[in-house]
Amino acid sequence: MDLDFQPLEPGNFAASLTAQLRDMVAQGKLVRGDRLPSSRQLAKRLNVARGTVISALETLVAEGVLEAQHGSGTFVSGACAATALIDAPNAPLGVRDLTPDVDTATAEAINFQPCRPSLELFPQVEWRRCVADAASARPSSDYGDPQGELELRVAIAAYLCRARGLDIEADQIIITNGAIGAIDLVGRQYLSPGDRCVMENPGYPLGRQVLAGHGATIHDAAVDADGMLTDQLPTGAPSVQLAYLTPSHQFPTGGRLSLQRRRELLDWACEQRVLLLEDDYDGEFRYDMAPLPPMIAMAPCGHVLYLGTFSKTLFPSLRIGYAAGDRRIVQRLSALRVATDYQTNTIMQRALARFIASGQFERHVQKMRRFYARKRKRLQTAVETSGVPGRLVGMQSGLDALLQLDSALSATSVADRASLQGVKVVPIARYAGQRGVADNALVLGYAALSDEQITRGIEILAQILND
Amino acid sequence: MDLDFQPLEPGNFAASLTAQLRDMVAQGKLVRGDRLPSSRQLAKRLNVARGTVISALETLVAEGVLEAQHGSGTFVSGACAATALIDAPNAPLGVRDLTPDVDTATAEAINFQPCRPSLELFPQVEWRRCVADAASARPSSDYGDPQGELELRVAIAAYLCRARGLDIEADQIIITNGAIGAIDLVGRQYLSPGDRCVMENPGYPLGRQVLAGHGATIHDAAVDADGMLTDQLPTGAPSVQLAYLTPSHQFPTGGRLSLQRRRELLDWACEQRVLLLEDDYDGEFRYDMAPLPPMIAMAPCGHVLYLGTFSKTLFPSLRIGYAAGDRRIVQRLSALRVATDYQTNTIMQRALARFIASGQFERHVQKMRRFYARKRKRLQTAVETSGVPGRLVGMQSGLDALLQLDSALSATSVADRASLQGVKVVPIARYAGQRGVADNALVLGYAALSDEQITRGIEILAQILND
Repeated sequence: MDLDFQPLEPGNFAASLTAQLRDMVAQGKLVRGDRLPSSRQLAKRLNVARGTVISALETLVAEGVLEAQHGSGTFVSGACAATALIDAPNAPLGVRDLTPDVDTATAEAINFQPCRPSLELFPQVEWRRCVADAASARPSSDYGDPQGELELRVAIAAYLCRARGLDIEADQIIITNGAIGAIDLVGRQYLSPGDRCVMENPGYPLGRQVLAGHGATIHDAAVDADGMLTDQLPTGAPSVQLAYLTPSHQFPTGGRLSLQRRRELLDWACEQRVLLLEDDYDGEFRYDMAPLPPMIAMAPCGHVLYLGTFSKTLFPSLRIGYAAGDRRIVQRLSALRVATDYQTNTIMQRALARFIASGQFERHVQKMRRFYARKRKRLQTAVETSGVPGRLVGMQSGLDALLQLDSALSATSVADRASLQGVKVVPIARYAGQRGVADNALVLGYAALSDEQITRGIEILAQILND
Repeated sequence: MDLDFQPLEPGNFAASLTAQLRDMVAQGKLVRGDRLPSSRQLAKRLNVARGTVISALETLVAEGVLEAQHGSGTFVSGACAATALIDAPNAPLGVRDLTPDVDTATAEAINFQPCRPSLELFPQVEWRRCVADAASARPSSDYGDPQGELELRVAIAAYLCRARGLDIEADQIIITNGAIGAIDLVGRQYLSPGDRCVMENPGYPLGRQVLAGHGATIHDAAVDADGMLTDQLPTGAPSVQLAYLTPSHQFPTGGRLSLQRRRELLDWACEQRVLLLEDDYDGEFRYDMAPLPPMIAMAPCGHVLYLGTFSKTLFPSLRIGYAAGDRRIVQRLSALRVATDYQTNTIMQRALARFIASGQFERHVQKMRRFYARKRKRLQTAVETSGVPGRLVGMQSGLDALLQLDSALSATSVADRASLQGVKVVPIARYAGQRGVADNALVLGYAALSDEQITRGIEILAQILND
């Protein structure tokens, strides 16, 4: 038996050896009944202490991967296929791929993680009534419409007309499990391994992960204060199928895509036959800059799909979003939806439809716009008075700001130090694509923090940066 | 320009030509600005009437794919990328793939479609209270646990212990959007194009579609009254990654996998390193046969993943199911869940947790077991007294029965005739894999029908069969 070991990880010999042996079993390089070299032989070969080898083998015996037989040695166990499955190399997305955006729990007391709405003023009683009303109807023996409840699609279409001036009808909308559910459906429908997909850099990490998970090669396009740089759009082979962007409020740098660039993007998309995914994830919260109409309003011929979500306007665990655009695309996605999880829960869809149709949704959004504007002011004041060496940008809309640092320290090291002092901030580098970005800014979600938390958090950042 | 036409479909010349031209534009064989041959030239070349060609061109002009310019001819329009996207060949699952199982609406008055629970005795008031209670808590600014709410996982673990004798803990369970959501996650995690996947034939068409959608080659294993034939399990290359089966109540033939075959399947799975998906979709409803313990109870080493759903015990549009098994598999699926749609709606999970923990779920299941037993008896009586030439099988559990026909007529033609008389029945051939099945049985879902509908429906089938 010729075992081909990689060099063991320094400082972590036993765990590294355990992992390598487990992989060899998983990959079939070691099979049921194979006898391992003795711990003495392995120790000599790997140039580690024998105790290290014994520790690794014991772990694998405890896991059932190996079996120790007294007097005759250590053998690969025949008992378990699960290891092979768990560590199968074909898994497109694994634990290690998870992005900062997906930290649900955080140990830090002051959490500036972006995209977290405040629930302080949430109309709990009215919402509960809508949910209870929706649960009052006897359920059906059949599945609901994979495209989404008509009642909710009608309510969203009317809302998009009032709030965003969009002329979109109910049959142009599909309800999804959040915007990420829509991105995932689109990726499944339209991407094949090797297709190219354009994304903003820095950009939405979960979107990047989902599209890459469908086999796409991501082409990074850098951004500035006017959004995605259109001169970085690729042409020629391999063909680009999709481009994902956040024109209203670039995530996470906060710029608004300029009208000129919107036109250039649309021309490019038309020329290159690219579907643009326009994610308007927090466009409801605008402060001191006039909104541009969504790009879909500029693209009558159907190559923009507009994505919306209720994760920021209501709350993330609602898991309701939507995609709106060309009827044929929406029909395709609805048909595909059947073969993923069929439909979004009907009761929650109906509850949300009532909440929107009764006007309560827009009243809540308006109230929160004022609330977030005050939080934003508080953040600006805190930054000004604390003496943080840096400036806030990207605050025209949304729930987050970007603090650009005038510092020799990297933003990542600042975030690490802040974490030790109970403040969670995310360095912009965590949103970078393969091309990377300058590690000189922190993303600050301010919406869900109390005034005191904002002030105290910025003071701590100032101390670190002025240290 | 050298256009390469396929022979036009007889009886459907215009539509066939329209489709071919649309595909040429979609595939880039015809590009923006290309001038088409004249209708006269095309008619001559394709050997069809000129009116047929004109009709096809007019359709494409109306769709915006072509542009007619008076006096100079018909050109490919530059306006639209959507057609290319919509008809992209890479789409893994399209409208055409949709299976009979996914007909949500049906024109027939008497609907024997399988897997439809009755909601007649649904405890509406108690359910509404659980939902309203769950909606009373202020939502969080953060996402919920991608693995599912702990409260619900604890309730399900306790239920599986009481109802199925399973020793499964809350951290071995992931909540999914129905069982199909679990099958989809498993397929994404463990399948690569070309992997083999074993399925029962006939079997669950949506499961087949989902797994094939992840690139798997489906290996059909036939079934008899004792479930899947284990001598049809493949060995050797290419390796099998997954096997999907319904051991408690084979869908749709109704057999129960024998103990002997369970053992053979587990040995094979262990030997071949295959993950078994054990879908216990309606195991709650057993009538006159003792249950066997789920296969996962026989497989301590983690290569069975047990799938459950509330679609049959409660209602399909709830979209809550679960997968239970090896912790490492569950962790992998939870990590992947983030990159699909993050989590199942929190309020519905909590409502269901309360409904189970309060004992109302099991009371409902017990009540429905008696209710369905009466419906089943009614179906048996109707078949006996109506003189239908056939016999009922596979009725030991679940909501459906199989009517095996003693008839020269194919089951498909019987179903077609029944449809014309307002009775929806599904011929077994609709559940067949690539190897096909004998078209000699009808699947009859009887659970959601009134006694009168059952009697009348069977009478109509008897008339057709005795005609």
